[in-house]
Amino acid sequence: MTTEPVFPEEPVLYEFQHGLKQIIKECMERGLCYASRWAAEMLNGMKPLDLDGAPFSSTPARDCAELSASDVTDALLERQEESKYFLGKSYFDCKEFERAAYALKDCKSSKCVFVALYSKYLVGEKRRDEENDEQLGVNDSAVIVNRELSAIAETLNALLNNGNNDPYLLYLQGVILRQRKQLEHAITYFLKCVSLRPFFWSAWQELSACLDSVETLTATMKLLPSDHIMTRIFFVFASHELHQVNSVVYEQLEEAERVFPSSVYLTTQRALLAYDARDFDEAEEMFEDILKNDPYRLDDMDTYSNILFVME
Amino acid sequence: MTTEPVFPEEPVLYEFQHGLKQIIKECMERGLCYASRWAAEMLNGMKPLDLDGAPFSSTPARDCAELSASDVTDALLERQEESKYFLGKSYFDCKEFERAAYALKDCKSSKCVFVALYSKYLVGEKRRDEENDEQLGVNDSAVIVNRELSAIAETLNALLNNGNNDPYLLYLQGVILRQRKQLEHAITYFLKCVSLRPFFWSAWQELSACLDSVETLTATMKLLPSDHIMTRIFFVFASHELHQVNSVVYEQLEEAERVFPSSVYLTTQRALLAYDARDFDEAEEMFEDILKNDPYRLDDMDTYSNILFVME
Repeated sequence: MTTEPVFPEEPVLYEFQHGLKQIIKECMERGLCYASRWAAEMLNGMKPLDLDGAPFSSTPARDCAELSASDVTDALLERQEESKYFLGKSYFDCKEFERAAYALKDCKSSKCVFVALYSKYLVGEKRRDEENDEQLGVNDSAVIVNRELSAIAETLNALLNNGNNDPYLLYLQGVILRQRKQLEHAITYFLKCVSLRPFFWSAWQELSACLDSVETLTATMKLLPSDHIMTRIFFVFASHELHQVNSVVYEQLEEAERVFPSSVYLTTQRALLAYDARDFDEAEEMFEDILKNDPYRLDDMDTYSNILFVME
Repeated sequence: MTTEPVFPEEPVLYEFQHGLKQIIKECMERGLCYASRWAAEMLNGMKPLDLDGAPFSSTPARDCAELSASDVTDALLERQEESKYFLGKSYFDCKEFERAAYALKDCKSSKCVFVALYSKYLVGEKRRDEENDEQLGVNDSAVIVNRELSAIAETLNALLNNGNNDPYLLYLQGVILRQRKQLEHAITYFLKCVSLRPFFWSAWQELSACLDSVETLTATMKLLPSDHIMTRIFFVFASHELHQVNSVVYEQLEEAERVFPSSVYLTTQRALLAYDARDFDEAEEMFEDILKNDPYRLDDMDTYSNILFVME
């Protein structure tokens, strides 16, 4: 006896839509453009929902009930610091990262602190790349690190040890720990982050990058809500990254496709699985289809180009 | 008998603050990062206003009264196209301009149309720069133009001739006309734009760039509301650009400084005027002061470096 596939109910779909829109806005406010891009692609991969059928408020009621005292304090701080935030974020948008961090240096709200620390992080990344370029060939074995990490970690530790639970600060802490090769520690931060913001894809990608074996993936899966749509999407991604694809991966992918029937991201995942299984004809057809819908897409086009080369 | 300087009343200051915040948000939504940066700097250059003293709504009542039927239609369209906007804007933020324009190609709301056309414009600018680089030295006299201009102008003409009055589309139309050397025509669009969005600095800068003589500046000034703070700031900027500085310019600058007592932008304007008057000591002191407050500022630092060189 086969069981009918369970289609997600409308209220659940509204919840996903709300979650994706929240991430898009929050990530745009924080300069996290790849995370907002992923969420926007998934949002557009859903079956369009009837606007009139949406719950009255765009914020599900339980969101308000869940607000802690520290969330309220943070929201008030954010309001007070609105003008400074505008200044720092507009410098950030003009790629003046050092200036953004400086403009926000006295801010206390989690949002402003994030933009300040993330700016510092980007300053450090840019400098590291420049220094690596300079010494290329001179002494390849010496790895230059991001020199801002210590200062950022110090600020983050003080805040997070003091009860701050902002999902984006938790994410940044994880990123820094991963750069410092403290993978287990990093994983705990990414898990906290995705439990608060399940649609924040960058945190899932970082989490996946911390997993170096099927065993760590299996252990991590046990800590995630097994029926959440994002757990499924993560499992497909992480399994493919570890080249550990089996029938469960395909089942999870199908579940995800039910919620996001026209997601170009999920079609790309399917094409990558076909490629890994050396089913080049199928993979090529899928990539053709992807490019018909999204002709300027660059993600994973290296694989497509490999396929075309192999099939010649 | 001297008259006392008139200090702006609190309600006027709230109106300025509201206008600046509106521009920051609208420009951030449209990828106009330099305009939002300027407005954010000016906002932070105001004396802090008491939040509790602010009018109840952040939108002055007359804004709603002024909403035309077409504004309402546009707002509804914008709501319907929210998901597409998120997609296009997130591509824009990731610098995928061609993809952004493609994602928004069927949109009808002024905001989405702006992001689509502005993306196309940037694609054309980038390509032009690349082609210019390639042919540098081969045939310097042939000027390569932005090849997207015709298509953008066609779309804009259809919309604007059909009654669309969106300030950002008017601005883009002006930018294209100026690139095509149709300066008089461009000026009319910039004037319409700043009458709708007085705090949108990029439009004022473009307007100034259309003026090639004191006569055209004088003629333009007659078409502007003489007592608006932005008319004053524009007059100082445009006079300096034309190297036509007299006592009226200083008076207008003083009026502006009353509203924005700690504006780094206005201090820089004052430093530039001192430099033009060959008062290097004063100019140097001002630049030193500017860098104390805004150590990562780059704007007009070429002038400061000239001053230091001359004074050696």
